[in-house]
Amino acid sequence: MREIPDIVVGRLPVYLRALSRMIHEGQQVTSSKELGERLGISSAQIRKDLSHFGEFGKQGTGYQIQYLVEQLQRILKVKEEWKVALIGVGDIGHALTHYNGFVNRGFRIVALFDSDPKKIGSLVNGLIVIDAAKLVDEIRARGLKVAMLAVPAEKAQEVANKLVEAGIEGILNYAPINLSVPPNVRVQHIDPVIHLQRMTFYINS
Amino acid sequence: MREIPDIVVGRLPVYLRALSRMIHEGQQVTSSKELGERLGISSAQIRKDLSHFGEFGKQGTGYQIQYLVEQLQRILKVKEEWKVALIGVGDIGHALTHYNGFVNRGFRIVALFDSDPKKIGSLVNGLIVIDAAKLVDEIRARGLKVAMLAVPAEKAQEVANKLVEAGIEGILNYAPINLSVPPNVRVQHIDPVIHLQRMTFYINS
Repeated sequence: MREIPDIVVGRLPVYLRALSRMIHEGQQVTSSKELGERLGISSAQIRKDLSHFGEFGKQGTGYQIQYLVEQLQRILKVKEEWKVALIGVGDIGHALTHYNGFVNRGFRIVALFDSDPKKIGSLVNGLIVIDAAKLVDEIRARGLKVAMLAVPAEKAQEVANKLVEAGIEGILNYAPINLSVPPNVRVQHIDPVIHLQRMTFYINS
Repeated sequence: MREIPDIVVGRLPVYLRALSRMIHEGQQVTSSKELGERLGISSAQIRKDLSHFGEFGKQGTGYQIQYLVEQLQRILKVKEEWKVALIGVGDIGHALTHYNGFVNRGFRIVALFDSDPKKIGSLVNGLIVIDAAKLVDEIRARGLKVAMLAVPAEKAQEVANKLVEAGIEGILNYAPINLSVPPNVRVQHIDPVIHLQRMTFYINS
C-alpha cells in the first residue's frame, strides 16, 4: 500500500463522492466510462487507479456501485467516523460547525478551540468552546488524530506545532500559508484561488 | 489549447502557488525535480504538463521562477484581476470577504448579494450587501464572469440558475450539492471532506 502515488489517493475521494451521488440518484451499476464522463477523467485512468486496490468490476458488466462505495470507504478508512478537532471559531470555524456535508462521509467535529476569552466557554452548535491553551492536553486525552485549522494566517504555524505535539496526524488548513510539519503529519489546504484559477483558464474576459 | 486535459489545467494553479512561494522565499531558479518534490508530483509529470504550453526552461539550467510565474499567470488569465460576485453573506461569505489569500492572485470580490432583509443594505468589509432579487441585473450591468456561491444547499441550484442567466461562466460552489449548469459554465466545489479523506488514507486510527 505504501507505493500508491498520492495523486491516485487524491482521486479516490472524488470517485467516492460521485458514486455516492449515483446511489442517491437511484443508480445501482456504473462503468468506468460513465464515471469518467461525469468527472472529466479517462476511463483508463479510473481503471488503473482502482486496480491498485484489487478487482472491483467485471469486464463488460461494470461496477456494483454499492460494493465499490464500501470498498472505497474501507480504503480511505471512513467506514467509521473520525472525531475531529476544530481550532478557531471565527467565520470559517462557525461555518464548519454548521456544514452538513460531513454527514455520512466519515467526519464529525467533537471539540472546538479558540483563544478569544469572549468565545471560550460559549456554546457553538452544541459544543463548548475550549480554551486553546488546553489544546494539547484535550486532544491527547481524546485521542484525536484529525484537526481543521481555521485561525488567522499569522497564528497558523504556532497552532500547527501544538497540534503535532498533541498527536494530530492530519491537518486541514484554511489559513492561506504553508505549514511546516514533520513527515508523519499530512496537511491539506483549502484554497479557493486554486479552484478559481482552474476555471478562468477557460473563460474569455 | 482546447485539447489540454482538464486534469493538467487543474495542476497549473498548484504549480503557480508553489513557485510564488519560492519567490517569496527569495529563490530565483528551480527545477522540475525540486518543484516535484515540494508537491509530491513526478518531475516527468511537471515537464509534460508544462510542455503543452511551450518551452519554459533549459535542459540542465532549470526554470527562471519569475518568468515561469508570469507565463502561468498568462495561461490561467490571472495577470489582471477578475471581479467576482459573492452570493450569500453568511459565515462562509463573511470569511471570504475577509480572506487575504486572494491578494495578488487574480481575484477581487466586488459585489455582495443576500436575500435576508436584515443583511441587505448593510456594509460588509466596505461593500454594501445588494438584494439577491437584483442579482441578474447587477451582474449583467457589471459584466462579471466569476461568482462564489455560499448559500444554503437547498437554495444553491436556484441561485446558480440566476447566475447562468446573468452571464456568469465560472462558479465556485461552497454548498455541498452538485449543480446542473450548461456546458459553457464551469463549476468547482470547495469540499473539505475530499481533503480529509485524502489524509485519513494514511492515518492508522
